[in-house]
Amino acid sequence: MDGPLKNLLVLDLTRVLVGPYCTMVLSDLGARVIKVEAPGAGDDSRKFGPFIEEYSAYFMSLNRGKESIALNLKDKEDKKIFDKILEKADVLVENFKPGTLEKWGYGWRDVCKKYPKLIYASASGFGQTGPLRELPAYDMVVQGMGGLMSVTGQPNSEPTRVGTSIGDITAGLFTAIGINAALYDRKKTGKGTYIDVSMLDCQIAILENAIARYLSKKEIPKPMGSRHPSIAPFEAFKTMDSHIIIAAGNDKLFEKLCELLNIYEISNDEKFNTNSARSKNMDELKVILEKKLSSKSTSDWISLMEKDKIPCGPIFNIKQAVENPQIKSRNMIVNSFHKKIGEFKTAGNPIKMSNYKDSKTRGDIPDLDEHRKKIIEEFCN
Amino acid sequence: MDGPLKNLLVLDLTRVLVGPYCTMVLSDLGARVIKVEAPGAGDDSRKFGPFIEEYSAYFMSLNRGKESIALNLKDKEDKKIFDKILEKADVLVENFKPGTLEKWGYGWRDVCKKYPKLIYASASGFGQTGPLRELPAYDMVVQGMGGLMSVTGQPNSEPTRVGTSIGDITAGLFTAIGINAALYDRKKTGKGTYIDVSMLDCQIAILENAIARYLSKKEIPKPMGSRHPSIAPFEAFKTMDSHIIIAAGNDKLFEKLCELLNIYEISNDEKFNTNSARSKNMDELKVILEKKLSSKSTSDWISLMEKDKIPCGPIFNIKQAVENPQIKSRNMIVNSFHKKIGEFKTAGNPIKMSNYKDSKTRGDIPDLDEHRKKIIEEFCN
Repeated sequence: MDGPLKNLLVLDLTRVLVGPYCTMVLSDLGARVIKVEAPGAGDDSRKFGPFIEEYSAYFMSLNRGKESIALNLKDKEDKKIFDKILEKADVLVENFKPGTLEKWGYGWRDVCKKYPKLIYASASGFGQTGPLRELPAYDMVVQGMGGLMSVTGQPNSEPTRVGTSIGDITAGLFTAIGINAALYDRKKTGKGTYIDVSMLDCQIAILENAIARYLSKKEIPKPMGSRHPSIAPFEAFKTMDSHIIIAAGNDKLFEKLCELLNIYEISNDEKFNTNSARSKNMDELKVILEKKLSSKSTSDWISLMEKDKIPCGPIFNIKQAVENPQIKSRNMIVNSFHKKIGEFKTAGNPIKMSNYKDSKTRGDIPDLDEHRKKIIEEFCN
Repeated sequence: MDGPLKNLLVLDLTRVLVGPYCTMVLSDLGARVIKVEAPGAGDDSRKFGPFIEEYSAYFMSLNRGKESIALNLKDKEDKKIFDKILEKADVLVENFKPGTLEKWGYGWRDVCKKYPKLIYASASGFGQTGPLRELPAYDMVVQGMGGLMSVTGQPNSEPTRVGTSIGDITAGLFTAIGINAALYDRKKTGKGTYIDVSMLDCQIAILENAIARYLSKKEIPKPMGSRHPSIAPFEAFKTMDSHIIIAAGNDKLFEKLCELLNIYEISNDEKFNTNSARSKNMDELKVILEKKLSSKSTSDWISLMEKDKIPCGPIFNIKQAVENPQIKSRNMIVNSFHKKIGEFKTAGNPIKMSNYKDSKTRGDIPDLDEHRKKIIEEFCN
């Protein structure tokens, strides 16, 4: 892969999602990633479904283009190999429970003395400090404790998680930001740094409207289905055949919407003529809008609304989302390759940069320990 | 603010969320951010609730520590001021509809000839290319079209959005990664770059399990409430007083859980003795577990499970999430200041770096055009 991080060596001690997501982003930016896995089983996610034959599509989608070596960091001989790679590494990324690498002699404090230029990033569930630092990290637990689940779902519904592991993913992204900023910093100062990212902290950092509401007004927001907490109408409405999202959040757009639906008088009604009035009376407004919207299909309404520049959209399932011509034209589905199963499709890199070609392929999927010989030859001779 | 991006000048042409979130992250890393707002109204989000007196807590939480100048980029005199700042800027960030800055003579192609070292980042709803490039960007629309809403919610429930504007936020994070990588790249090559991030692309990039499932098996995943799509038990369960999240995804943890609940025989039952068996029979298992869990409160169960190292947690509302001692000890709620309303609390920076102090404060909240005089004196003399 070509990219801004070309010629950088990332020593990747991560497993499952938060760390591998971060090193995948680095790999997509051109870095060389050497993944160190536990001998025997390797990354736990090699056993997570869905599978193609016996291979985890989940593992493959996160680790395409990385090299794999199996090393036991408690074993003398393996430590020697690890030390040789570490000597050349620019970045070390890990997501063990805090304290684990210290036990093996590779905590940041040990390593930074020997390698003051190394950038060392730890992603963990709760961070390297604080009363909860020892607790293991799980996306679900972090989504629950971070408050996000308390504002996601239908009113009074059972608890609802975000349908993707957003606790891991946002922490992976913040870690990648920290690493890139540290690389820039190192170019100026010559010094490495330690980066400590907690999944729980990241959940607090993405609460947006909900945290502004609580910190400023002591309001405790609740789940509102598809409704936006402070803009109206800004939610999904029933149509003849499915749903349509309408985001007509200012008075002008709302007027246009009313005109299109032949209920222009509504936009002058004082129950609906300002955003705050609409927010207060949204239940009543929804009934009025859905009565009108029930006369056509979602795609018919979208055509009409797009003509009038009323922001709207469908709710796509994953197949529709992936097959959207926009996604194809943006090269967001790329190809990788696995020796046994052949071509493998996976999500691409959303950071498009003019200086580098956005490749249509990614490197191969690594089998456990596949690159041992090559890595030893390169680093230990 | 001290940090790896200290002494960098970011010229911030962004409004509402995706762009301001990105420049907030850059500001938290030490960059100086000059926010250029439309004369008169300024950033639209100055009018978004919640409000403290007449000030938007939403705007304040995203723009603390930035400087504000109001410039009309169609006006000759204002353009002269803008040009002077642009001359010194390291990074330009914007989230207008594609084509808008071109019309005013500040498209990337125009600007890069004069300032080849400038890093120019555009965040938009659908990207600068492709059939949908002209459509306006709204988080709700992007959550709907990106597939995330199709896997979030209760089975067969009404459409459910993620309770935070994850469409904007993830795109803001990817843009920040791109900018930092470009800064590192510029240190090597001396060249700036153009960065094009689409909110919709970013939704595809975070689909994780769901996209692996579709691309490898042509399965179309559906919303599953709080249940994990491929690990079991990994969801929220009813207790005597509320809910508990249990993430006992491997056989050992499941055995421990069964032991604690006095149903050890269950862990040997072939309906439940492997992850794939449990996944298949999760409805039945949930009834068994909830019957047992109904005898104690969530906090009692958490104490017991933590002793046994069974991963678990509560579902916190926003108040509980913010008041968690872990969050306090991690400095995740920081102070800013507004001339009229005084102290203002907001979320902190989850990227903790050993080389820089994690400040307990952020710069002041800018009124519209507050720094005009100072900026003109500095750049135009």
